[in-house]
Amino acid sequence: MKKNFYHPELLQTPEGVRDIYGDECSLKNYIQDKIHHSIKSYGFNDIQTPSYEFFDIFNKERGTVKSNEMFKFFDRNNNTLVLRPDITPSIARSVSKYYEDEEFQVRLCYVGNTYQNNSNYQGKLKEITQAGAELINDDSSDADAEMIALTVESLLSTGLKEFQVDVGHVEFFNGLCEEAGLDERQYNYLRELLIKKNVFAIESYLSELSIDSTIKDMLIKLPEMFGNNDYIDYAKKHVKNERSLAAIDRLEKLHAILDSYGLRQYVNFDFGMISGYTYYTGIIFKAYTYGTGEAVATGGRYDNLLAQFGKDGSAIGVAINIDQVMLAIKRQKIEMPKEDNKCIILYMQDDRNAAITLAAKKRSEGMMVQLIRKSSKHSVAEYEEYAKRFDVKDFIYLSDNA
Amino acid sequence: MKKNFYHPELLQTPEGVRDIYGDECSLKNYIQDKIHHSIKSYGFNDIQTPSYEFFDIFNKERGTVKSNEMFKFFDRNNNTLVLRPDITPSIARSVSKYYEDEEFQVRLCYVGNTYQNNSNYQGKLKEITQAGAELINDDSSDADAEMIALTVESLLSTGLKEFQVDVGHVEFFNGLCEEAGLDERQYNYLRELLIKKNVFAIESYLSELSIDSTIKDMLIKLPEMFGNNDYIDYAKKHVKNERSLAAIDRLEKLHAILDSYGLRQYVNFDFGMISGYTYYTGIIFKAYTYGTGEAVATGGRYDNLLAQFGKDGSAIGVAINIDQVMLAIKRQKIEMPKEDNKCIILYMQDDRNAAITLAAKKRSEGMMVQLIRKSSKHSVAEYEEYAKRFDVKDFIYLSDNA
Repeated sequence: MKKNFYHPELLQTPEGVRDIYGDECSLKNYIQDKIHHSIKSYGFNDIQTPSYEFFDIFNKERGTVKSNEMFKFFDRNNNTLVLRPDITPSIARSVSKYYEDEEFQVRLCYVGNTYQNNSNYQGKLKEITQAGAELINDDSSDADAEMIALTVESLLSTGLKEFQVDVGHVEFFNGLCEEAGLDERQYNYLRELLIKKNVFAIESYLSELSIDSTIKDMLIKLPEMFGNNDYIDYAKKHVKNERSLAAIDRLEKLHAILDSYGLRQYVNFDFGMISGYTYYTGIIFKAYTYGTGEAVATGGRYDNLLAQFGKDGSAIGVAINIDQVMLAIKRQKIEMPKEDNKCIILYMQDDRNAAITLAAKKRSEGMMVQLIRKSSKHSVAEYEEYAKRFDVKDFIYLSDNA
Repeated sequence: MKKNFYHPELLQTPEGVRDIYGDECSLKNYIQDKIHHSIKSYGFNDIQTPSYEFFDIFNKERGTVKSNEMFKFFDRNNNTLVLRPDITPSIARSVSKYYEDEEFQVRLCYVGNTYQNNSNYQGKLKEITQAGAELINDDSSDADAEMIALTVESLLSTGLKEFQVDVGHVEFFNGLCEEAGLDERQYNYLRELLIKKNVFAIESYLSELSIDSTIKDMLIKLPEMFGNNDYIDYAKKHVKNERSLAAIDRLEKLHAILDSYGLRQYVNFDFGMISGYTYYTGIIFKAYTYGTGEAVATGGRYDNLLAQFGKDGSAIGVAINIDQVMLAIKRQKIEMPKEDNKCIILYMQDDRNAAITLAAKKRSEGMMVQLIRKSSKHSVAEYEEYAKRFDVKDFIYLSDNA
C-alpha cells in the first residue's frame, strides 16, 4: 500500500551534492580527523564561522570565486547572503574583528564546508569539505616553510605517500609584467594564457608586443620553469627587476628552510604558477597527487587581505580539500584501518536485563554495540547474515536456552 | 594608511549566525566529540547528507519547519533548493534509497548544521549544529527505550548532570480527539492551545463543544498530567478508546525498560506533550536542563515517514542541539578539561634547525607546537606575555646564548 506514495524524484539530491555513508563516510571522517589533528599539532586553534555571510565578504576584491558561481539568497531585510565559497575571507574578517590589536602570531584553523555554484561539467562537486589553517602576523620565510611542512605532514598522516607540492610566487610574474610595461588588459590576458599553460598562444601574443627581448624570452619560458631548484639560479641570472628578484630570493630562502624540515622531495618550484585567486601577494602553492586532477591542497600568502577588513597584518594559509584527498586514497587503493569494534547483542525478551548490562560493559570497553530484541519472524542464522552485511565482527546471541 | 579601507560593516555577520572561536570553540568541539562518541557506542554508523536539498524533501507532509522559515534559493535549472531545516527527512530519503530492501535494523547517525530562517526574536540562532541518531526497522519498545537511554548517556558524557527527558505519545491525544469526534479544524486548534499549555483557553474552548464529559475532563487535565509515573494508572482508568490505551501501554512498557537501564530518574512522562513536528507517530520526547529555555534534545518515533520515500519501515530518532548544550554548560559553570598541551618554541634564526627538530619531537608527543622566529623588535618578556594571553603553558626560548 505504502508504495502508492512512492515518488522516485524524492530520492534525488541536487546536482553536485551527494550522500556519503557506509565505508566511504568512515574513510572521510578518518581523513578529516587525521588532517585536523596534524593542523592542531602545529599550534592552530579552531574557529567556526557561519556557513553563509553577507555577499560583500566574498566580493571581487576579496573573493576567489566569481559572483555568478556563488549560491545567493536574501535575509528578511533583503540583504544578499551567500553560502561561503571559500573560508579564508571569513577568517580574515574574524581576525580583524577579534584580534585587531594582536601584533604577535594568531593561528586559526577550521574544518567546514564550502559551496560553489559552478556549471556542473565533469561532475564537479558543489559542496566540499575543507580543513584549513591560517597563520596571521608572521611575514617570515619561516612561516612560509612551516605552512608547506604542515601541508606535507597533513597529507602524509592520511596515508597518502606520492604527492607533490608545487610552489610559486605571484610577484615573479608581476615584476616581469611591470618591467615589460604591460597595461592591465595585456597583463590579465597573459595571465589567463599562463593559467591554461597555452605555450603557443603565449608565444604568438608576446611576438605582437614590443617589449625587451630578455623579458619576452623569460615570459615564454615560464611554463617550463618547473622543477626542484633547477630554475632558481637561472631566474636570478636573467631577471633584473626588483619585484621578481625579491620573489626569487624568497623562494630560495624557502628552499633552504624546507631542507631543514627534510621535506624537499615533496616540493617543486614553479615559476610559471599563476593563481586564480586575486588576494595572494607572496608564495602560492598547490598539492597534487595521482587519482584526481584537482589539487588536494591550495595555499598562499595574502598580506593585504586583512587590511580590507581594517587590520594591518600579514597572513599565509592553506586549505586541504578533504573530498579530493578521499578520492585519491580510494583510487590509489590505499588501505585504511577498518573499524573492527562493531558488536551485535541479539536477545530474547526475557534476557533484556542481561543484554542491557552486557551492552553497557562492552560500550565502556570502546565497542560500538547494537542491541536487537530477537523477532520470532527471523532465525538466528538470518541475524548472523545481517551482521556480516554490516561488517559486525562480534555477534552475541543471548538466550536462556543458548 | 590601510585604515582607509576600513569598513565596519564588513566585520558583521548576518543576524542569527555567529563566529565561534577560542575557548568557546574548544568547548563546542569537546561536547560534539563526546556526544558523537556516545552515539557511535550505540552502534550507529555515520552518514553525511548535503547541506541543501530540493524543497520537496522538507515540504509540509514531511517537514518540521514552515515553508517561510526555510532559506530558499535556486539551482541553475530553476529548481527550488533549501538549506536543510532538519536532518531527519534527509536520513529518511537516504534509507529509502540505499537500504530499500534491508529488513533488519539500520542505525545511522550524523553531526551537521541545520538552518531556520525564523524571525529573529530573542536572538534565536538561525544556524545550529545537531548530532543525531536514527534507528530504522525496529518498532519495539526496546528501541524506544534505547533511544532515550542514548539521549541520557550523551548528555551525561558532556558533563551535564541536571536535566530531564520528558516523554509523551502522540496517539494519546489523537485517540482522545478521535473519540470525541473533533473535526480537523477543532483538532488543530486544540493542538495549538495545548502546545502553548494555555489552560484557560483550553477549558473555555472545550466548554463550547458538545463532547463526552469524561473525555472533556481528560483533555482539560492534559497540561498537568506530567510526572514520573503518577499518571499512567490514572490514564488507564479514565480512557476507553483503543488508540489512547495503546499509547498508555507503550509508555508503561517504556517505563519498565528504562528501569532496567537504571535511568528512571532522568525521565518524566507527559501525557499533554504535543509535538510541532507532524511526522511523529509514536513516542515523542524532549530533554531540558536549566540555563536554556530551548530543548537540548528532541526525538520521537516516525513510522510513516519512510513510506513517503517508498520504503516500508519504522523509525525512531533523536537530535541533540550542540549549541544549546554548550549554552547550558556555560551557564551552569560546569568545568571542562582545559587544553593544556599548548607549546611555543621561540628561536633565533641561527637555531632554526634545533627548533624544527624540537617541534617535531614535541608534536609526536601530542603537543600543539607553535614555532616563532624571534623578531628583534620584541623582547623575550613580550613573547612570554603573549604566551599567557593564549594560555600557552610550555614556553621555550631557544638561543645560542640562552
